[in-house]
Amino acid sequence: MQEYLSPILTIDVVMVTLKNLRIHVALMTRAAEPFINALALPGGYIHAQEDVDTTAAAVRILKSKLSFVPRHLEQVYTASGMHRDPRGWSASVVYLALQEPAVMEQLAAAGQVTLHDVHDGVAHLPALAFDHADLIDAAIARLRGKAGYTSIAGYLLPLEFSMTQFREAVQGLLGKPLNNANFRRKVAELGLLAEASIKGSQGRPAQQYSLVEPHLISFNRDLG
Amino acid sequence: MQEYLSPILTIDVVMVTLKNLRIHVALMTRAAEPFINALALPGGYIHAQEDVDTTAAAVRILKSKLSFVPRHLEQVYTASGMHRDPRGWSASVVYLALQEPAVMEQLAAAGQVTLHDVHDGVAHLPALAFDHADLIDAAIARLRGKAGYTSIAGYLLPLEFSMTQFREAVQGLLGKPLNNANFRRKVAELGLLAEASIKGSQGRPAQQYSLVEPHLISFNRDLG
Repeated sequence: MQEYLSPILTIDVVMVTLKNLRIHVALMTRAAEPFINALALPGGYIHAQEDVDTTAAAVRILKSKLSFVPRHLEQVYTASGMHRDPRGWSASVVYLALQEPAVMEQLAAAGQVTLHDVHDGVAHLPALAFDHADLIDAAIARLRGKAGYTSIAGYLLPLEFSMTQFREAVQGLLGKPLNNANFRRKVAELGLLAEASIKGSQGRPAQQYSLVEPHLISFNRDLG
Repeated sequence: MQEYLSPILTIDVVMVTLKNLRIHVALMTRAAEPFINALALPGGYIHAQEDVDTTAAAVRILKSKLSFVPRHLEQVYTASGMHRDPRGWSASVVYLALQEPAVMEQLAAAGQVTLHDVHDGVAHLPALAFDHADLIDAAIARLRGKAGYTSIAGYLLPLEFSMTQFREAVQGLLGKPLNNANFRRKVAELGLLAEASIKGSQGRPAQQYSLVEPHLISFNRDLG
């Protein structure tokens, strides 16, 4: 049997949060060639001796580079080709990571990442390393595609949130206003949220909600 | 910078058709170790000198092993890990390929593949090579997930088909009956199909339909 040189295999993570109801992505500045000094997604190589799989590799890379484990992590797709990396034929397994803005802003304040508004696309960003602009587009399309029928927007909120906060987050992702009563009914029908504490607010107690799975690291291989 | 050995990178294709309205998958018998003589998905290595990307690799592998190009091909996810391949740490980019039963039955009649009913899962199949049972599960979950809101079931039908055939295919995939009138309205609203020829049938002419994109090879990176 003929054998072939293995291509380069990397992981890249599109870390997304919702700041002022607009989608932001976290980028780092590359310290090494290729694309030295360019903005890039956090990422790295597989460590075959320690990573059980690509999801474990994504978690290890975020922990080691940013001391950070996201609330939600899912595989988006694998970008690949002859031309995306000057070092040779390469494939990158792309992950979408979601976190509430307070945590992402801490990372940014510590100088570990910079947050960039990509709500209307990536065209206004400076040139990114590799094909990372495409990777961001794909991850955000996945996030928006799931926002209308899953609880995924909740990973962009604090652990407990009001129904209004949840609706505003979904509206922000979908880019369209949603009828309040219809939205509540759909959330209940789909069983998207669990009831959490009741928060007093100027004499009007407000029901708070949480995600059924507040922390979900997933292959996500079986979601349409 | 520390360098790491590249893991093994392969492509595996879950070739699916709908025979008697039940989901069938095409398998081959492995001619080499590991898992010699076991049933397996068609697949192979990346050829870095000729494959533009993993989708091109999937097409090349199907052409060279089966002289076959499917009507629809999309990336599902990447399976990976330390333990899935006895040769070492490996990742496989998994593709879903769809084709009408007549073509798949020709391949089977020529002895190139065997067709297996996996409509109710893979548990009754003989032990498959690697983690291919999981790969089949994931690809079928993707197909079923998309059947309710896309035209994907049409790739399992001839190039022209009646609305009844299309509804029966979607019903088969979803595993539930669909109201005829509601189904027609939804298909029209979503713009899923194009009008094709009108076929005479016992004096009652029947409108035939076709897919808007009858042949679609896609990264499918942006579908929720």
